[in-house]
Amino acid sequence: MSEYRTAVTWKSGQELDVACEGKPALAVSSPPEFGGNGERWSPEDLLAGAVESCLLLTTLYFVDQMKIGLASYASEAVAEMKRTSEGLRFQSIRVAIEAGVSSAEDEEKMQKAASQAEAFCPVSAAVNCPVEVSLATRVG
Amino acid sequence: MSEYRTAVTWKSGQELDVACEGKPALAVSSPPEFGGNGERWSPEDLLAGAVESCLLLTTLYFVDQMKIGLASYASEAVAEMKRTSEGLRFQSIRVAIEAGVSSAEDEEKMQKAASQAEAFCPVSAAVNCPVEVSLATRVG
Repeated sequence: MSEYRTAVTWKSGQELDVACEGKPALAVSSPPEFGGNGERWSPEDLLAGAVESCLLLTTLYFVDQMKIGLASYASEAVAEMKRTSEGLRFQSIRVAIEAGVSSAEDEEKMQKAASQAEAFCPVSAAVNCPVEVSLATRVG
Repeated sequence: MSEYRTAVTWKSGQELDVACEGKPALAVSSPPEFGGNGERWSPEDLLAGAVESCLLLTTLYFVDQMKIGLASYASEAVAEMKRTSEGLRFQSIRVAIEAGVSSAEDEEKMQKAASQAEAFCPVSAAVNCPVEVSLATRVG
């Protein structure tokens, strides 16, 4: 069992800090459409970033296992939230990945690594809206 | 429909940056038990922080609606993850809140606000492991 601990302190208005031992504190507020100033991370941003970064780190595990020559990896995530009869609910988190690999063979292996990551990524698995992953590869 | 966008760039090893327009970039890596250096936020930390900060902001909405005199609010979150036959899976996220309010009447209202927040918090609702919230109040 692994444990991850964070601590929130309310500052004023809709501003708060999130601490995590040994790491820089994170300034958070509501997104602008709910009264935040747009200069601080929102919880919604953090959820998107948690899924997106966990997918990369899980992919790296399979890249290593499959001995893929990975030269670059970048992704963009979009989390969609909408007002429903039950309140605000996330509808989907889409992650579009671009990866540079060493060879055509590695392009194929990279698709498998990304599929494996999608299945095993613990943060994606903890989310109950669809997490949709797409991967574009290029050699070089 | 609201959209939240983040962008991940792999640096090297298990280090990556997460960007969100107009906000400071976030340095992320694996947790130490999976090869990270422990000085960067992990995706697991971010998930705990997303739930915990969203609970505060949702609570503030109900505090305002119910006209509660809220003097202070701090919380601690613990996310538990364990290895299962399907891979690493979050088991629970527990959030313990301490709030200072103006009066005994507000203590009672604050319990209601926290219950409402638990039901309506969109990030908690997006997580499929149990989110367990406890609230301790004091006057002053």
